[in-house]
Amino acid sequence: MILVLKPDATPEQINHILEHVEKLGFTPYPIRGEFRTVIGIVGDDNKPGTESLNALDGLEQVLPILKPFKLASREFHKADTVVTVGSTKIGGGFLGAIAGPCAVESLEVVDGIAQRVHAAGANLLRGGAFKPRTSPYSFQGLGEKGLHILREVGNRYGMPVVTEVMDTRHIDLVARHADMLQIGARNMQNFELLKEVGQTKKPVLLKRGMSATVKDLLMSAEYILSGGNSQVVLCERGVRSFEDSTRNMLDLASVPNIKGQCHLPVIVDPSHATGRRDLIPPMALAAVAAGADGVHVEVHTCPEKALSDGPQALLPEQFDALMRDVKRIAALFDKKLT
Amino acid sequence: MILVLKPDATPEQINHILEHVEKLGFTPYPIRGEFRTVIGIVGDDNKPGTESLNALDGLEQVLPILKPFKLASREFHKADTVVTVGSTKIGGGFLGAIAGPCAVESLEVVDGIAQRVHAAGANLLRGGAFKPRTSPYSFQGLGEKGLHILREVGNRYGMPVVTEVMDTRHIDLVARHADMLQIGARNMQNFELLKEVGQTKKPVLLKRGMSATVKDLLMSAEYILSGGNSQVVLCERGVRSFEDSTRNMLDLASVPNIKGQCHLPVIVDPSHATGRRDLIPPMALAAVAAGADGVHVEVHTCPEKALSDGPQALLPEQFDALMRDVKRIAALFDKKLT
Amino acid sequence: MILVLKPDATPEQINHILEHVEKLGFTPYPIRGEFRTVIGIVGDDNKPGTESLNALDGLEQVLPILKPFKLASREFHKADTVVTVGSTKIGGGFLGAIAGPCAVESLEVVDGIAQRVHAAGANLLRGGAFKPRTSPYSFQGLGEKGLHILREVGNRYGMPVVTEVMDTRHIDLVARHADMLQIGARNMQNFELLKEVGQTKKPVLLKRGMSATVKDLLMSAEYILSGGNSQVVLCERGVRSFEDSTRNMLDLASVPNIKGQCHLPVIVDPSHATGRRDLIPPMALAAVAAGADGVHVEVHTCPEKALSDGPQALLPEQFDALMRDVKRIAALFDKKLT
Amino acid sequence: MILVLKPDATPEQINHILEHVEKLGFTPYPIRGEFRTVIGIVGDDNKPGTESLNALDGLEQVLPILKPFKLASREFHKADTVVTVGSTKIGGGFLGAIAGPCAVESLEVVDGIAQRVHAAGANLLRGGAFKPRTSPYSFQGLGEKGLHILREVGNRYGMPVVTEVMDTRHIDLVARHADMLQIGARNMQNFELLKEVGQTKKPVLLKRGMSATVKDLLMSAEYILSGGNSQVVLCERGVRSFEDSTRNMLDLASVPNIKGQCHLPVIVDPSHATGRRDLIPPMALAAVAAGADGVHVEVHTCPEKALSDGPQALLPEQFDALMRDVKRIAALFDKKLT
Repeated sequence: MILVLKPDATPEQINHILEHVEKLGFTPYPIRGEFRTVIGIVGDDNKPGTESLNALDGLEQVLPILKPFKLASREFHKADTVVTVGSTKIGGGFLGAIAGPCAVESLEVVDGIAQRVHAAGANLLRGGAFKPRTSPYSFQGLGEKGLHILREVGNRYGMPVVTEVMDTRHIDLVARHADMLQIGARNMQNFELLKEVGQTKKPVLLKRGMSATVKDLLMSAEYILSGGNSQVVLCERGVRSFEDSTRNMLDLASVPNIKGQCHLPVIVDPSHATGRRDLIPPMALAAVAAGADGVHVEVHTCPEKALSDGPQALLPEQFDALMRDVKRIAALFDKKLT
Repeated sequence: MILVLKPDATPEQINHILEHVEKLGFTPYPIRGEFRTVIGIVGDDNKPGTESLNALDGLEQVLPILKPFKLASREFHKADTVVTVGSTKIGGGFLGAIAGPCAVESLEVVDGIAQRVHAAGANLLRGGAFKPRTSPYSFQGLGEKGLHILREVGNRYGMPVVTEVMDTRHIDLVARHADMLQIGARNMQNFELLKEVGQTKKPVLLKRGMSATVKDLLMSAEYILSGGNSQVVLCERGVRSFEDSTRNMLDLASVPNIKGQCHLPVIVDPSHATGRRDLIPPMALAAVAAGADGVHVEVHTCPEKALSDGPQALLPEQFDALMRDVKRIAALFDKKLT
Repeated sequence: MILVLKPDATPEQINHILEHVEKLGFTPYPIRGEFRTVIGIVGDDNKPGTESLNALDGLEQVLPILKPFKLASREFHKADTVVTVGSTKIGGGFLGAIAGPCAVESLEVVDGIAQRVHAAGANLLRGGAFKPRTSPYSFQGLGEKGLHILREVGNRYGMPVVTEVMDTRHIDLVARHADMLQIGARNMQNFELLKEVGQTKKPVLLKRGMSATVKDLLMSAEYILSGGNSQVVLCERGVRSFEDSTRNMLDLASVPNIKGQCHLPVIVDPSHATGRRDLIPPMALAAVAAGADGVHVEVHTCPEKALSDGPQALLPEQFDALMRDVKRIAALFDKKLT
Repeated sequence: MILVLKPDATPEQINHILEHVEKLGFTPYPIRGEFRTVIGIVGDDNKPGTESLNALDGLEQVLPILKPFKLASREFHKADTVVTVGSTKIGGGFLGAIAGPCAVESLEVVDGIAQRVHAAGANLLRGGAFKPRTSPYSFQGLGEKGLHILREVGNRYGMPVVTEVMDTRHIDLVARHADMLQIGARNMQNFELLKEVGQTKKPVLLKRGMSATVKDLLMSAEYILSGGNSQVVLCERGVRSFEDSTRNMLDLASVPNIKGQCHLPVIVDPSHATGRRDLIPPMALAAVAAGADGVHVEVHTCPEKALSDGPQALLPEQFDALMRDVKRIAALFDKKLT
């Protein structure tokens, strides 16, 4: 850590700060400059108690030097983590192609969609049984019945399934039926939920919160990893911005940004990021070109009958075309779909 | 609702849209313009199934006309709601002055702070027992023991107490000890939690999410209201922005913005909004001048020993000065503290 | 400055960095920690050539310590600057009350508005002759004719006048007619324009850009100050955000934030910040309570005939009421209007 | 346009609005609904005077239906525009590969860089002679001398050159030496500058402002097009956001978003968008995969000696590798470099 003192910090304040640093068990190295003093601190930035430094008089800024996450960092784990979900691998050269409807609506609808996305090359089936909806008056999902449907359809096509869990009380139930647990954007900082999924052995798909920085996302992954569950896939799905012609702003640079400092696989969801069918294919291709470990796309056989988010679902024939292009770009970068 | 069709929508597409609208039970009024066709729809925008309109071919935009919330709207409930928490009233001319430490640390510390803020005029004591922390390695709160401390100190000074609840499994426990349940910014769209606190009879302090629009906040309030709990106080606490010299950006205009369309009380938390001790007093005064129904301020007798968020806590003497000014501005606007 | 080296920086890289620092004329103080090395640098952060440090191999971050602006800083000039515009003073306890139409439309309209705002207590008349409009098809202002009208009406009521200058070629013309030059939000980083108004002796009203940080704004002020013109008033007018129910997000905390580190007066423009007539009065009052040195409000006698921005103009009677309340809050804080 | 009236609009207000609409020369179609009245308006949304509608009493919202730009829209001009800059074509299947140093520093440096980027396949040489710098104390560019250098080096390698123009007074000078005029992000809404470059016959590279929406960008293009200059290339270069680990947030979805509604070529500048050398190659590749008509990349032979923005410049050998990959992706999409 580096402590930057105020230009008018008094000698008493400086001494008090030096004593406080030593009391915390650190060695302070003061550098007295022309305009102000800075204090270098050798030791672990993440040590408990260091937060208290922020409140000292005479101090202008505490500049951390170490990353606040450990288990998620490449310094801790150099090689790419490969997450295995049933027969599907994600990361380290393996691409995940997650597709399915926004919500599980009925066995027939999910089956129709799964048949098509499976044929096109998707290797993980998605569908929401518990749905986070902005309005209490919107369709809230089929709950347990939806889980049964998703499982059944997954089995029919030999596809592992991923679905969202929104509440600690539902983890056991969802984990019984699903192969991978999704933490949605709105729950990325639901820390109790993160702790509990960290206790399971299920792979987790952790979506970036709508105003989460890359660092925030990695800290949330750290919650899960520190619980003992190392099977985490991160998902960029766009953040809030002033641009009003798309639902969110897809921060595609987060993919190489994360992968440079973290060993976990990163996939991209252009459906939620843009909210517009016309923008999904180009952004899915861009994601693969940017180095993403997979894509997450909503597909519906009849978007105008979808109970949720119809406008952002691709039609099956659009998904077919997209997967053909995904495979061509993947081949350029030696990525494969299992 | 208004449906705006694409300039090149075909007659077949237009007919399909008109039929779909009628199938949903609405009456469509097409207006055929020079450049494109729009269709006015008479009826309730919030009717189930209307979402499906978004996915129709030939359609460019669906423009809603009604607000998506009802119970929270002034159209539904014209008069200001007054929320009563123990002896304290908030809204309709009554100011809430919520103060206390970020986290409940020990009986002694909370008592020392409560004694001071009570003397200065605070009418609601706050303190976190369950703490949402970005890092799994930060202090996570005392949990149940913290609730006991907060209750005990509240009783000593005759102050009702408010504390955060982060998980559906903790609601009963927190509700046994606290007079008001706080939903934190990170849980503003934890819909399961909102539904469950909607089932309690406890007043709720609902904080705005870090990237929530005013409409999102009101939709989350609607979740609680629609569960049968009408005692909701909203709290503006700043949103994420590109400005990097404050922790968040305080959107003070949200106060008159919300109060114009919603009957619930709105208070302001300048501590979390700015994250800087020097900015808290001016923003608390600005909040009252803007028409807020109260302020929410962190106070600590020894910020450098605080286990959480020390730099954004006022010292007791700063809080004394602030409360004197708050009362002077409140008097100008005929607001009172009970 | 503090140089934070990468954890895996090689001894060769470290040596190269130390040499480079010395070549720039600085003394480096390396601190070799458990996890990585940091190098403290004593000397002036703003020295030419220091930017080159950013590009060195083995370096992770360069942390500046000094503020990048000088003339604008309180460290350079401790007392509040009072800017004098004709008979009006702004700053150091004096409130500016700038009012008038968005655009100068005709002598009659401006006269009618000036008469009313003057009577209500405004002490500076505003009106746009050159208008920055998003669309090339919108009214672009009366140009020179508008300047004549504004000057004439200012003279009638003994009010100094402020108007926008958008191009270096117009500075002489505008300066001949106006008492104060406004640099609009869209031109806050039009550095050629800043340099040129820095060469005039006219007071300048510098509006914050739509995505400018507080630091960016102060750097733009520094451009003007470094040209020799010390008469600069800063104006907070809202920034871009995801909130879609107001035109911009008013960052009112910027007022105490700026005033703590800069001696220049700061005023607030709630008209452009919110774009909504109902939100202007509460935000103007909040601005004064937050310590602003004035307000900037659009007023129109007939908003529905305004050629620009009608919806954000107060009616004269609303402005009367607002000024009464402004004076009451100003009195609490010992501020006066000249 | 659609006028949405307030739920409590009085019959008098409704009549006044209908009369006002007719006075503007439009035909109003009122639709009286259960909860409120809306008025459909047939005619040209962009007609002068329509803005006045916003200020009418009883009105809640004016919803435009037509796009506010015309010449830039695909409705006006269906085919892709191909912009020709000397021997280079951009758009309609032709990729621009713009490369060069941030600032023109000396003949030797620019020559060394041009030699390398030309060999790697770049088809347009960039370099700043007039530099917009946040600080008045930073290097401001060589001015006219820089233009001479850029021209000379361009001629040596047979590369057309593009450079920024920051002020209306410099247009003639810059146009004498450069093949393409760049309008920088900070001047995207410098409307006087846009009007004047609209009067030249030079191709223009228009960069997106740091907080400009896609619509804002297209409106700025409209300024140039409406002046008679149809040779405009748009450039996505990232926008301001809360994410603090990159310089800006690259909004790559703007590429297909713009191309769907506008016929002008769109290129992407990952150097300014990310500010980080490690992120430039993946984002340049993603840009081509997303359908961009080119990339704009800063390259420097010795970034640590660069007078400006060294950390975001690729080394020549990195640019070589990037161009190899760009060509492979371009081939997949049948794009060619001239």
